[in-house]
Amino acid sequence: MKYLIKFSYDGTNFFGYQKQPGLRTIETEFEKALYNINNHKETRIYASGRTDAGVHALCQCAHFDLSVDINEYKLKRALNSFLPDDIHVFFAKEVNENFNSRFDVVEKEYCYLINIGEYEPIRRNYIYQYNNELNIKKMKRAIKCFKGEHDFKVFTSKESIKNNYVRIINKVQIKRKKNLLTISFNGNGFMKYQVRNMVGTLIKIGSEKIEEDSITKLLNGDISDKFVYTAPPQGLYLKNVEYNKEIIDKK
Amino acid sequence: MKYLIKFSYDGTNFFGYQKQPGLRTIETEFEKALYNINNHKETRIYASGRTDAGVHALCQCAHFDLSVDINEYKLKRALNSFLPDDIHVFFAKEVNENFNSRFDVVEKEYCYLINIGEYEPIRRNYIYQYNNELNIKKMKRAIKCFKGEHDFKVFTSKESIKNNYVRIINKVQIKRKKNLLTISFNGNGFMKYQVRNMVGTLIKIGSEKIEEDSITKLLNGDISDKFVYTAPPQGLYLKNVEYNKEIIDKK
Repeated sequence: MKYLIKFSYDGTNFFGYQKQPGLRTIETEFEKALYNINNHKETRIYASGRTDAGVHALCQCAHFDLSVDINEYKLKRALNSFLPDDIHVFFAKEVNENFNSRFDVVEKEYCYLINIGEYEPIRRNYIYQYNNELNIKKMKRAIKCFKGEHDFKVFTSKESIKNNYVRIINKVQIKRKKNLLTISFNGNGFMKYQVRNMVGTLIKIGSEKIEEDSITKLLNGDISDKFVYTAPPQGLYLKNVEYNKEIIDKK
Repeated sequence: MKYLIKFSYDGTNFFGYQKQPGLRTIETEFEKALYNINNHKETRIYASGRTDAGVHALCQCAHFDLSVDINEYKLKRALNSFLPDDIHVFFAKEVNENFNSRFDVVEKEYCYLINIGEYEPIRRNYIYQYNNELNIKKMKRAIKCFKGEHDFKVFTSKESIKNNYVRIINKVQIKRKKNLLTISFNGNGFMKYQVRNMVGTLIKIGSEKIEEDSITKLLNGDISDKFVYTAPPQGLYLKNVEYNKEIIDKK
């Protein structure tokens, strides 16, 4: 039986999502839990994508196959009982055998939080503290340049070798509520460091260190990646992963 | 010169406010920082009161004397540069030599956060997760019994030996915003465990484990302290400490 789960995590004490020998990662914690649930059988889990060390998820999605018969409610309970308290499964569903949590993604949403007010100790791992002036009008104009279909190679990690760097961004938004700035992106997929690099570059535009038209120039290849800046991980959240209902539902 | 400082902290990784040999406490961190600032002289700090391990502060106040001449802005900067990132000083002021951060308190405010919705890993150290039904109407009626002048001995820690357990509570409030419950108390002083015991007992009333009139009966000595419950520390915040402006201002 194939299952889809939705879960949240606090990325602070993990070396990212992906399994790495000897390091505490989200994938490792899930595979330990699934080993116990699936009759002591090694069980792989496939997430919609990875997140870096320190990055949080409000809604991450993954699938796996189990050979034991367990209902959705009990599966959710069992996972949460084996998982540490910085990971929480809030949804579990038996799905179509053809479902794939990575390849069937229709849209993902990431958001990034910036505090431009007084530093708050209790939020230090959950927000990026920015202590200088930001020209938010400039950032709001500049973020629109990310919308649409672009080759985002210049905004991804150099380690990340792909056949295709073209992605579509459907929606961008910058909201300010008192001293909290929330920057969000909805798109069909995001590559390693892409959101942090888009946000870091927007911050440089807001702080007037680089020109407002830098994003268009970067996407067009008119200026080099030395104008790309990486925002720190703790402000970043994977907020949502969308699938088509028909793909998920068991026939 | 005497200084008043206001500061916030994340209580998660501290063994409470008070200095204890070999343990990481907020007082110890301040005395290390002050030693460096005050020409390598041992310098005591006096806070408005203590907080337990795991309890947070949005606004704690303290005073100390320095023999070096340093302006308020530089003092704040120097403290934050020596303090760890889970403590933050947001205010520093040279004050009247007679000012005492503990004895001159006019009012303190504590608040307590309870999540009655889905568990959120990123808030696990900053909120109390409550997974059962709560009758909030009953809690709102019951909390009013704390208002006024009462002997709160039954609501304090048994270790806490005082001459006088009478305190005045000026204001009580329970607010619900979606799944977040905020319980707050303003009063002239609170003893060890008092707020956590008041909240824990309110939760027992809300969950209908004890009668709605238990608070009045406890305050009157009609029932024993076995009806008092202690809420966990991570939901508790010292939110504000009030002084009279005339007492603070340097003559």
